[in-house]
Amino acid sequence: MSILVGSTELLDPHGAYAPHPAARAIAARDVLGSLESGCGVRGLDATAERLGEMRAFLGSDLDEIEGALATTGAGESLAHRSAQHLLAVGGKRLRPLCVALAARTGVGFTPAARELAIAVELVHAATLLHDDVVDLGEKRRGVDAARIVYGNAASIFGGDWLLVEALGRIRAAGLPDVLDRMLGVIKELVVAEALQLARRGRAGTSRDEYFEVARGKTASLFRWAMFAGARAGGVDGRACDALEAFGSDLGVAFQVVDDVLDVAGDSDVTGKSVLCDLREGKMTYPLIVAAERDPSVRRLLDDHVAPDAEISDAVIARLAAAASAPAVVAQCLATAEELCGAAIRSLDAVPPGRARSALESVAVATLHRSK
Amino acid sequence: MSILVGSTELLDPHGAYAPHPAARAIAARDVLGSLESGCGVRGLDATAERLGEMRAFLGSDLDEIEGALATTGAGESLAHRSAQHLLAVGGKRLRPLCVALAARTGVGFTPAARELAIAVELVHAATLLHDDVVDLGEKRRGVDAARIVYGNAASIFGGDWLLVEALGRIRAAGLPDVLDRMLGVIKELVVAEALQLARRGRAGTSRDEYFEVARGKTASLFRWAMFAGARAGGVDGRACDALEAFGSDLGVAFQVVDDVLDVAGDSDVTGKSVLCDLREGKMTYPLIVAAERDPSVRRLLDDHVAPDAEISDAVIARLAAAASAPAVVAQCLATAEELCGAAIRSLDAVPPGRARSALESVAVATLHRSK
Repeated sequence: MSILVGSTELLDPHGAYAPHPAARAIAARDVLGSLESGCGVRGLDATAERLGEMRAFLGSDLDEIEGALATTGAGESLAHRSAQHLLAVGGKRLRPLCVALAARTGVGFTPAARELAIAVELVHAATLLHDDVVDLGEKRRGVDAARIVYGNAASIFGGDWLLVEALGRIRAAGLPDVLDRMLGVIKELVVAEALQLARRGRAGTSRDEYFEVARGKTASLFRWAMFAGARAGGVDGRACDALEAFGSDLGVAFQVVDDVLDVAGDSDVTGKSVLCDLREGKMTYPLIVAAERDPSVRRLLDDHVAPDAEISDAVIARLAAAASAPAVVAQCLATAEELCGAAIRSLDAVPPGRARSALESVAVATLHRSK
Repeated sequence: MSILVGSTELLDPHGAYAPHPAARAIAARDVLGSLESGCGVRGLDATAERLGEMRAFLGSDLDEIEGALATTGAGESLAHRSAQHLLAVGGKRLRPLCVALAARTGVGFTPAARELAIAVELVHAATLLHDDVVDLGEKRRGVDAARIVYGNAASIFGGDWLLVEALGRIRAAGLPDVLDRMLGVIKELVVAEALQLARRGRAGTSRDEYFEVARGKTASLFRWAMFAGARAGGVDGRACDALEAFGSDLGVAFQVVDDVLDVAGDSDVTGKSVLCDLREGKMTYPLIVAAERDPSVRRLLDDHVAPDAEISDAVIARLAAAASAPAVVAQCLATAEELCGAAIRSLDAVPPGRARSALESVAVATLHRSK
């Protein structure tokens, strides 16, 4: 695991988790750019170099996916427009990347893998359109959310449309078990989102409950991406299981880092408002860790956070300070690091090669991402 | 077409479109009851008798569907609860009835037909959960809408969950073309809903534009129900086309009657608030007809109905009076009657028998429904 750095190395000289301003220059369309620069600016040159190699390796795969996403949802209705709006602002495309790399551990980026890679991003986009309505989110990927531009209703219909478009592509890929698994995953996603909703403002949410939601709402789709890529690349048996396990751990790590970015990220880089989750009363991982480490944070949560109660700005500020404290961020990132380490160890059962090596880089970059 | 009565017979002695109060006693769980009583109370004894026969004919099919719907969505999350809430209050189950009858024009109500019949009601329920959020609907099937009980977010997640549950059942039925068609139909539904949304408050909506939306948002699912039932019952070729054509015309007729019930129905019977569509600025069929017949209604629409503008109670009252005028209602019902007549004529290509005869009764009952 020599490529994993100690989590304290993620902190700047002042001990704060501060992505380098250079990261702001990253073009939204640049699929690997954000991961790569995220590493480069912290001196993780070896990883940045490996991600650069990955770009050369996957170049046309990613272009194909991006090209297909750019033309998906062509149409004049409000459902089409809200879908296009979200797809056009780009994104990390990490889930399609997982599909492409999993497929390349086998026979390669087949036409079926291409469809599945597009589909996983469309399902992700569908959940974002619905989540923004649920959370009343105003910004997404640095621009106004589709619901702000076209309205809540358009965002709901856009999400429905994308979901069905994705399922159509999966069906057309001709791997029935991959379709069945996706239907199960969407249910998992929805139930986890509903669970998270029900737990909003419940200060007593445990670490176990947190991971239950993270597995359902985030890891399930990463796991599917790896499974789908494996199946499209003709990979099965132990290697397929290993790729799935990679996706699952990577997904939970991704969510933990996401939570850290909510309290300690730079909104100009993440493209989301800071403290969004906190204001919504979501029990994010840094909050759970902060409350475990400091009884006064636990009391603050117990006294001021309740379902349907608005949290005052003063309390938000105190919670944000507690959750973004260097020791808390370091502990959260240590958890993410453990998960990324476990993900990388799973790959032992996968034949070595450029694809496996690229997956290792993805895990490291996920840990070090700034958006 | 001797079973079709003149549309004026639907009017009460005072010329108003008034379902008999006896219809209020109909149990929500009674699948055929509402159609049957709707006919019985207007003296359409022959039709009521035929619907009674249909009940005997389909008895266990409907019980199976109802039993499956009662246990679908078992779970504790808010997504499950909102789905259960809607399914538990019952409904006309007209779409599953179409699947069952189409299947029975062939080899019968096969296990695949059963799954498809359940699935079509689940898709319908999913669209209702999302539509109620879009329309801010407060009542559905006579009780508080799921979004009122569990919130908008739960209603969105519940809709997503039901959609995927339905698609899983269709996939399990093992007829790939039926699944592909449903994916296409859901897109049609969503795009039509989005189109309707964009046209809200647009007083100039034409008759053609109205039928375009009605075909997309309502008839597409009826058409699918007939196609799915036919395929599950081993019916293809001309007979399958004929059953689809039946579904399509029936669906548009159903929507026209729905619009009439919005202005001239009894909310205690329909289970929805009266004038709902009108308040939302939807250009329903009675409004379009009223504006065609009377230039003063057209001026009223042009002067007071605009996108995003609230319509005053005084204008609502005048529009409601115009749209529920006996001559307007009669003209709307004449259109619905033509459509039901065309639907019944399509059945000429279907082998005669109890199932075909039952489909004819469904068309007649759709025309005469009071909820």
